[in-house]
Amino acid sequence: MKTIEKLGIDTVRVLAADAVQKADSGHPGTPMGLAPVGHVLWNSFMNYNPKNPNWENRDRFILSCGHACLLQYIYLYLTGYDVTLDDLKNFRQLHSKTAGHPEYGLLPGIEVTTGPLGQGFANGVGMSIAQKHLAKRYNKPGFNLFDYHIYAICSDGDLMEGVSAEAASMAGHLGLGNLIYIYDDNQITIEGETSLAFSEDVTERFQAYGWHVQSVTDGNDIGAISTAIKNAQKEKARPSLIKVRTHIGFGSPNKVDTAAPHGAALGEDEVKLVKENLGFDPQKYFSVNKEVLEFYGKKKNEGKEKESEWNKMFLSYKKRYPEQAKEYEWSKEGKLPKNWDEDVPVFSPDEKGMATRKASGKILNILATKLPLLMGGSADLAPSTDTNLNEDTSFTSQNFSGRNFHFGIREHAMGAVLNGIALTKGFIPFGGTFLIFSDYMRPPIRLAAIMGIKPVYIFTHDSIGLGEDGTTHQPVEQLIGLRSVPNLTVIRPADANETVVAWLYTLKHQGGPIAIILTRQAIPILDQKKLGIAKNLEKGAYILSDCSNNPDIILMATGSEVHLILEAQKQLLAKHHINARIVSFPSWELFEKQSTSYKESVLPKKIRKRLAVEAGSPIGWQKYTTDDGATLGIDKFGESAPGKEVMKEYGFSIESIINKVKRMLK
Amino acid sequence: MKTIEKLGIDTVRVLAADAVQKADSGHPGTPMGLAPVGHVLWNSFMNYNPKNPNWENRDRFILSCGHACLLQYIYLYLTGYDVTLDDLKNFRQLHSKTAGHPEYGLLPGIEVTTGPLGQGFANGVGMSIAQKHLAKRYNKPGFNLFDYHIYAICSDGDLMEGVSAEAASMAGHLGLGNLIYIYDDNQITIEGETSLAFSEDVTERFQAYGWHVQSVTDGNDIGAISTAIKNAQKEKARPSLIKVRTHIGFGSPNKVDTAAPHGAALGEDEVKLVKENLGFDPQKYFSVNKEVLEFYGKKKNEGKEKESEWNKMFLSYKKRYPEQAKEYEWSKEGKLPKNWDEDVPVFSPDEKGMATRKASGKILNILATKLPLLMGGSADLAPSTDTNLNEDTSFTSQNFSGRNFHFGIREHAMGAVLNGIALTKGFIPFGGTFLIFSDYMRPPIRLAAIMGIKPVYIFTHDSIGLGEDGTTHQPVEQLIGLRSVPNLTVIRPADANETVVAWLYTLKHQGGPIAIILTRQAIPILDQKKLGIAKNLEKGAYILSDCSNNPDIILMATGSEVHLILEAQKQLLAKHHINARIVSFPSWELFEKQSTSYKESVLPKKIRKRLAVEAGSPIGWQKYTTDDGATLGIDKFGESAPGKEVMKEYGFSIESIINKVKRMLK
Repeated sequence: MKTIEKLGIDTVRVLAADAVQKADSGHPGTPMGLAPVGHVLWNSFMNYNPKNPNWENRDRFILSCGHACLLQYIYLYLTGYDVTLDDLKNFRQLHSKTAGHPEYGLLPGIEVTTGPLGQGFANGVGMSIAQKHLAKRYNKPGFNLFDYHIYAICSDGDLMEGVSAEAASMAGHLGLGNLIYIYDDNQITIEGETSLAFSEDVTERFQAYGWHVQSVTDGNDIGAISTAIKNAQKEKARPSLIKVRTHIGFGSPNKVDTAAPHGAALGEDEVKLVKENLGFDPQKYFSVNKEVLEFYGKKKNEGKEKESEWNKMFLSYKKRYPEQAKEYEWSKEGKLPKNWDEDVPVFSPDEKGMATRKASGKILNILATKLPLLMGGSADLAPSTDTNLNEDTSFTSQNFSGRNFHFGIREHAMGAVLNGIALTKGFIPFGGTFLIFSDYMRPPIRLAAIMGIKPVYIFTHDSIGLGEDGTTHQPVEQLIGLRSVPNLTVIRPADANETVVAWLYTLKHQGGPIAIILTRQAIPILDQKKLGIAKNLEKGAYILSDCSNNPDIILMATGSEVHLILEAQKQLLAKHHINARIVSFPSWELFEKQSTSYKESVLPKKIRKRLAVEAGSPIGWQKYTTDDGATLGIDKFGESAPGKEVMKEYGFSIESIINKVKRMLK
Repeated sequence: MKTIEKLGIDTVRVLAADAVQKADSGHPGTPMGLAPVGHVLWNSFMNYNPKNPNWENRDRFILSCGHACLLQYIYLYLTGYDVTLDDLKNFRQLHSKTAGHPEYGLLPGIEVTTGPLGQGFANGVGMSIAQKHLAKRYNKPGFNLFDYHIYAICSDGDLMEGVSAEAASMAGHLGLGNLIYIYDDNQITIEGETSLAFSEDVTERFQAYGWHVQSVTDGNDIGAISTAIKNAQKEKARPSLIKVRTHIGFGSPNKVDTAAPHGAALGEDEVKLVKENLGFDPQKYFSVNKEVLEFYGKKKNEGKEKESEWNKMFLSYKKRYPEQAKEYEWSKEGKLPKNWDEDVPVFSPDEKGMATRKASGKILNILATKLPLLMGGSADLAPSTDTNLNEDTSFTSQNFSGRNFHFGIREHAMGAVLNGIALTKGFIPFGGTFLIFSDYMRPPIRLAAIMGIKPVYIFTHDSIGLGEDGTTHQPVEQLIGLRSVPNLTVIRPADANETVVAWLYTLKHQGGPIAIILTRQAIPILDQKKLGIAKNLEKGAYILSDCSNNPDIILMATGSEVHLILEAQKQLLAKHHINARIVSFPSWELFEKQSTSYKESVLPKKIRKRLAVEAGSPIGWQKYTTDDGATLGIDKFGESAPGKEVMKEYGFSIESIINKVKRMLK
């Protein structure tokens, strides 16, 4: 190793030790062990422009073991991103950019928020899919617009998590040769040696998935690491895993290769010993040698030139392929093409109606013809969730131009892969499964909400109304579970037309994920001429049908239950002279965005008798029903029987609503 | 194959086709394909007593692909469990015992509720651990009290789900030789051929985990299936996977080996063709040949004799090892030993206090000395969650007597394994991780609640107060997410003594899982002589400190926030002459169980100014705060900084509570 390289690598170790010590919080050991791997990646392999972290053909870097974030922060600092030494000194402090785990959007150069283990691994698979599709769609002879790689560093924890197993199987199946993953084999976890819980043959497992696996026995051997990465780049048809034996806390004479430096500062004395051990002045803090700064600083110009060349290529491309260039440009800017929504259907009123999942499938298929980067699929439930793009092909190892994904029975990886696709500008990825299985994908849903990216979840079979599949398949607490995630918008449309509007809103929405909640069973299509128009769905709640007199009560519902309260309204008036206002309430989050006066117009303060009806947990509806109101919900698990019977059994019938209203007004 | 065996197997196929056809709902194809495997298991290998499905040394059978439930229902019927032909005719009907997926407690012989894929696979690992521990603890020379196997049938879907990957790695690591899993390799999924999404080498993958893997190429060859199971039984040190190539819908001339019979009735005509094809009368429905009933009926006597022999052995054992027998007996009956709670500590008031996770660790360690089958561990966070039993050893492949589990970084499998352990009478399993990672284990938590079994979840690092780990690690919506699960009891104690009571309550509780929510940071220990006693935690909410005058306002909080409202109470009175009642509100679920009069005594209807303070989503508190009240909660994600600073930044300070109260009372 050249002196300067060794000096650079050791500087990273010392800075990591300093930063954690100053914060008295964090994970110094892993960055210290991984410093040579980081050096090889940032110095020799990755293409990037520190001054434009958004350059589209940059290589992507994912730190799946997000707790090692200082590794990334320090290399971003050294290579000239908009990260300062002060940022490192403010590690883990209020409002600093150097958070405890890397956060997308907070620090330039962070491609994805990581920390919950396994997620980054699977996000990379999504990024890889996006790259493969961009290349297939836009690259032309002489114009390799998109030829970037996805690099990631993963820990044993990442490999133990099930989501990475799902994603690895998927990546092998799809032959994603643009993935180059480093496995940080440091053999230490929080509880002690990794072998306490993990003794599988990782190499053999990944070979079984169809990966190209290499091993580097000395994590300080930058030549060997480089050779392995070169080999991985040559391998085009299989994703690569490079197992590198590193030493956690390398440089720390007393703590190397123990659990001690994993999650705590080394201690003042040990930090000094690290510095002495590595030939640094133990009295200096956050000290970076000028030569080291110059050495990595050259990446700024290199990166600028690389992007500049690419920009030139894109300009020529634009002349030669103006249509494609234009399409790519409006896509990546998150715009919608002219007339994108002109062919969307308006469904005629129909008592027999249509399952909202079916309506979703229809509108989705129309929108897909307008939006080339709208793509997705299902966790082996495409026929049930109506998520197939009928005119399109499947995305396979032989056909990266396909837009239909077969995620397999892997909801968790689906969620994380959608995040990876959504992180690639231009794409609008969607994924479908039964609402109950949203439980399998809570972690990536949360991360999408944190990052403010927009995967679209199509959750069908949305209540006990799905019927015979029974208890294990009938959602109860899932709706409130999703509504409680900050920055996730949940929409449960009441009929086919509301479903259309939900999709149109979804495409216009920016800054967070959306979950569209759909029925398995057919429900009536409402008459927009007689009732409130479906377009009002965008307001979250609206008066679907008002009474001619002052309302005695407001009935509100979402999805399939709207039809119950509508019918109850008629009978209440006809048989009991009770005036009920009917509110369709497809989305709490959208309603909360409305003005106070609009909210008051729908739910006037003076009308305090209110009944919310939803075939799910009643929790949270109190916010809208007042102390004088009530909620007809479900506070136990479902039951296996035909859907209509279960609904009735659980009190979701016109009769029981009428009885409840009568009791409330007594 | 003998004629009677073929007739038996084909009867299962025909009954499955009939039952799904009658219900016009269900999954006929998989039971049809698996009928020979079922025959071999129930006829030749599994030890059970149909008349006592709870016999402790029975072999366990898990249908991980729960949608194939008719396979199990029909063999339970044929072998003489309390299942009738009428039950099969009522498949998937309201209040019938033959639900759409097998439900524990609903039909005798169902060991575990399955349906969400991957769960059963992982539950079996828990059952296997329980068996190994029982055998190690209670078996003596000449007394093989516990030598049962855990059999499971898994589908490709089970093997695609990450939870099974986590559990498989764990099972291989632990050398669980009592596991015999059949992989139903039917090569069909809902979207089409399994190879659409799944092309990994399953055999190689499981070998990499350390499993013993065999392959049977003809799923109708009961000799080959038997040989493989015999081999698996001989293998003592490794779990076994037997890959069996079956044919979905076998017997159906037009639908075999297609996705069609996976999830829908075959159709009247095709059911007739099945019968013709298999030599049955196409005009007869639910017809079972007498010889077939006699053939399988002999299992009743066999089972009775087996149990009777075992009971005799247990009687001798009881004479020879009375202590052990007694201990096992009260354990399996779910009883607690005399004086089980006599050594629990009472913590003295202390302003500096103690993190509730620390208090939990202390009480847990004391209780573990009294309860031999209280066992558990953490998903690689034992030091952080304080879940280590300090006087105990680790459960490893070489030491099945250990009670400390190293689940690895596998929260999902931890949850499912806890379910498997909890399903074995006598055990009280616990598992610890950070509250945020409860998101990784939602599916098994829900299943525990559905089954009414009692794993104990120790969720620490319970709010933004955990500090520097930041956004990805700070729970916001997790508390409400858990509270919304029916039959799950969530307890968030306010200090060390409430934590003790939470544990004592947990041990007495029956019929559902419990989540104990604990702080990372130290919080004061309350003075029980001056304030309400911690014992009141069992009531869910109680007056911790009342005012001498009528309250102007009720302040309620859980966990660490209780200390904020207590201090606010003092300052409100001293500086602003505002009388506040302070309610510690550790558990919604426990409060809901109290009498109306008790609830009224804590939260009188006439006191409508109420403020709830909790460092989590405010959703749901409206139920307790009234229209005139408010909630100080969090409706966005957290931030990386020292815990106290984040708390203050998010409004969790005495000052902001006082200001809020003043505004409310204006």
